[in-house]
Amino acid sequence: MQAPLLLTPGPLVTSALTKSAMQHDWGSWDSDFNALTARVGQRLLAIIDGADNYTCVPMQGSGTFAVEAAIGSLLPQSGKLLVLANGAYGLRMAQLTRQIGRQVMVADFGETSPVDPAVLRRYLEADESITHVGVIHCETSTGILNPIEAIAGETASLGRKLIIDSMSAFGALPLSARNLPFEAVIGSSNKCLEGVPGMGFVLVRTEALEQAEGRSHSLSLDLYAQWRYMQKTGQWRYTPPTHVVAAFDSAIAQYEAEGGQPARLARYRANCETLIAGLKDIGLASFLPAEIQAPIIVTVHAPKHPAWNFNEFYQRVKARGVILYPGKLTAVETFRVGCIGAIDSSDMRRGLAAIAAVLDEMGMRQ
Amino acid sequence: MQAPLLLTPGPLVTSALTKSAMQHDWGSWDSDFNALTARVGQRLLAIIDGADNYTCVPMQGSGTFAVEAAIGSLLPQSGKLLVLANGAYGLRMAQLTRQIGRQVMVADFGETSPVDPAVLRRYLEADESITHVGVIHCETSTGILNPIEAIAGETASLGRKLIIDSMSAFGALPLSARNLPFEAVIGSSNKCLEGVPGMGFVLVRTEALEQAEGRSHSLSLDLYAQWRYMQKTGQWRYTPPTHVVAAFDSAIAQYEAEGGQPARLARYRANCETLIAGLKDIGLASFLPAEIQAPIIVTVHAPKHPAWNFNEFYQRVKARGVILYPGKLTAVETFRVGCIGAIDSSDMRRGLAAIAAVLDEMGMRQ
Repeated sequence: MQAPLLLTPGPLVTSALTKSAMQHDWGSWDSDFNALTARVGQRLLAIIDGADNYTCVPMQGSGTFAVEAAIGSLLPQSGKLLVLANGAYGLRMAQLTRQIGRQVMVADFGETSPVDPAVLRRYLEADESITHVGVIHCETSTGILNPIEAIAGETASLGRKLIIDSMSAFGALPLSARNLPFEAVIGSSNKCLEGVPGMGFVLVRTEALEQAEGRSHSLSLDLYAQWRYMQKTGQWRYTPPTHVVAAFDSAIAQYEAEGGQPARLARYRANCETLIAGLKDIGLASFLPAEIQAPIIVTVHAPKHPAWNFNEFYQRVKARGVILYPGKLTAVETFRVGCIGAIDSSDMRRGLAAIAAVLDEMGMRQ
Repeated sequence: MQAPLLLTPGPLVTSALTKSAMQHDWGSWDSDFNALTARVGQRLLAIIDGADNYTCVPMQGSGTFAVEAAIGSLLPQSGKLLVLANGAYGLRMAQLTRQIGRQVMVADFGETSPVDPAVLRRYLEADESITHVGVIHCETSTGILNPIEAIAGETASLGRKLIIDSMSAFGALPLSARNLPFEAVIGSSNKCLEGVPGMGFVLVRTEALEQAEGRSHSLSLDLYAQWRYMQKTGQWRYTPPTHVVAAFDSAIAQYEAEGGQPARLARYRANCETLIAGLKDIGLASFLPAEIQAPIIVTVHAPKHPAWNFNEFYQRVKARGVILYPGKLTAVETFRVGCIGAIDSSDMRRGLAAIAAVLDEMGMRQ
């Protein structure tokens, strides 16, 4: 089967080298695999300049598993989380906090606006019981970039602790523990670091982790227990997704060789600019204003045509070897195109050519 | 790097074909991947003759994640689980039930005896509040095979529901819903079905699943929500480990081509017999009596030598390309050798030759 071009927010196109790292079976108890796990953790900490004060705890499962593990372990029973929501992932963070029986409050900024740090300040001033603030770095529902520096600044200045879900941004958008105060940042293997899906990770202030014993609502998702076991034995507490971890190790080595975060951001930015300019040429408009558009995923207005049908459009584009992503907005008809993965501007042009040809076929070229 | 021979209970040696299935990047939203997920579920249900009354719910993470998801979703808040324990995995099932805040009681049979169905009967007769019974099919701590037919019979005859953790046995040891009453059986991708690690699955009576709404202590591990979402959309609720799922699909196709459960059991039994006979030739004794030894993993008495050191032994055997597994017994010095994976009797002989040569080197051949 010919590999499709995935223009999605992940799982995404991975390099041949990353996939070839999965051609080896590792013993999960063996010291070679433990060394690999340790190296992945060190490399992730280096990305946020966090080697001194932060600890990396990997977690089996999807990114949501890692978010749930972080909140279940870092938010005390007596704590209260304020979630700054502007899309599905913020709402999901609030939902999981509620489901595990912790106190949560949502500041909802709708689907189309970034988080407003002044509003955050008012929430924190009005409710002293809020101990933690949760935010999505880049809200994948639309592609909005949230003003993470200002959010971290307000949260810290009012003495609260920040938990950042940076799932779709980690490694591409800058985030340094040197100039940004935060308690934990959560990422996954299969977004901007271009590994395959199957694990997430939490980079957490070591002091906060040390206080997390016995808090978790779950055995499997207990971040503290995972960390302690790993400290003691070098191993994951329960069977790790060995091939996924090996692929991630290879993907991070390629990330470093490419030039790390600045190089990754530059490539994605070029992808995003090629995409938005090309869409305009086809007669399609991207949904977000440029200043809040992260170069991760672009929400696109569907053609204003009475016979518009996303599924037909999707299948026709797929027949040309390109996989797009559905929209997630409730009020406006949209679809989404990812800019991330082991792809470059020539791939974006291939995607654009498929979109243009299909709109022509469907008689919807505007 | 030369691939080592993994004589472990998993992650284990997978075939080249299984690994090659991970050379393709799948879109997790795409219908081709949904079809793959559906096919995996149907194939797993066929293994237990469960197509009519059971549903397969896959779960991201290690096998323990799937066990926690099953118990958190199938055991009501008012329920009480009796765990039949004879090793680490039984105790872990009890621990996770306690940690998620449900009632649990342990019938502990020690580390060296199979579960006694007569004792189970006495527990159930003595405590009417017990609603569910949990048991490990093959206890990997030692390799004990538990008498699953008699356990299922007693449990059903006293009107209770059985949850079977068949992690290390599923697909190799017979288990049919036609002649064995059970509520759910839990397995994983990387044991006797010879996939790679990163997902588990729960095969659950559909009627029981239908009653599980709103019970889970966890968003990520909510079995009911995973099922409902999959029913509605064909997709996993949160990002699936796409490459792991594709490898699993390939591994199950190879399992069917080999001849399914009887053929898999025959190969593992031959591996186990070759191993135990070969150990005897070297002067090593296996720990369990033959009648309770499952052909999955063999616990071996360490040589009775004052200078015995497992780590040195392990490293020397590893230098010969063979990965063994540490013992898990508290009172007796042992190590373990797995019989499962894409290996046959000739591989077992290679493993035995490495063990013999190393014992010679170490001056411990008896």
